[in-house]
Amino acid sequence: MTFAFSDSARRILDEPHLATLATLFPDGSPQTSVVWLGVEGEEVIISSQRGRQKVKNIEADPRVSLSVCDPRQPDRYIEVRGTATVVEDTGRRTAVLLAEKYDGPGGGVPFLEMPPENVRVVLRIAPSRVTGYGA
Amino acid sequence: MTFAFSDSARRILDEPHLATLATLFPDGSPQTSVVWLGVEGEEVIISSQRGRQKVKNIEADPRVSLSVCDPRQPDRYIEVRGTATVVEDTGRRTAVLLAEKYDGPGGGVPFLEMPPENVRVVLRIAPSRVTGYGA
Repeated sequence: MTFAFSDSARRILDEPHLATLATLFPDGSPQTSVVWLGVEGEEVIISSQRGRQKVKNIEADPRVSLSVCDPRQPDRYIEVRGTATVVEDTGRRTAVLLAEKYDGPGGGVPFLEMPPENVRVVLRIAPSRVTGYGA
Repeated sequence: MTFAFSDSARRILDEPHLATLATLFPDGSPQTSVVWLGVEGEEVIISSQRGRQKVKNIEADPRVSLSVCDPRQPDRYIEVRGTATVVEDTGRRTAVLLAEKYDGPGGGVPFLEMPPENVRVVLRIAPSRVTGYGA
């Protein structure tokens, strides 16, 4: 299967809207958290850190759903469902990329200044289904 | 167990921020959708409609999670986890209440004008855990 975002889905994802990611606890119940996101190719990328609940959840069960909405025009929203993988964020490149998308130039500095114990990771979501506005 | 929202959690919930609700599909994978919410006592209330996926999901498995965030101050966010029940929205009272919270006076009119086939329901979330800012 070759998945491709529609143009309108890609526009919403490219804008700096806060998104909410749902993962699954070991008992199968859902967890949600507010995240920054980016797009690389046909995948959604999220920056996180080793030890966080959502990272542990994804490593045990990769099924996720993410909703993102334009708060000034709430009918512009999409839901992305799929499976996520966790990879190390080498050089904290993704943390900086997303911090600059959301917080502007220099936004990445706090991530570069974190101590090395904070192991940053990238959650890469391969979509299986996208619904919502223009999807 | 007697659950009670903290004052700061209640303030975030009382403000008209869009929230994202996660429910579980029959196969256990998560679904997310952007919702309006309100608070009644120590429960979160959401307006929805018979036939919607999230309503069907809750009727099969009541476990939900909801995140809400102040977009102007994203460190003000909370996650509410718990179980939801679906009850009929008699007189569409909750639909109107939430539409006026988010869209202002008169916001409820479109809901009152919907045809009777649109059976409005209330999702009532009894929290088991609240995390985040001031929770």
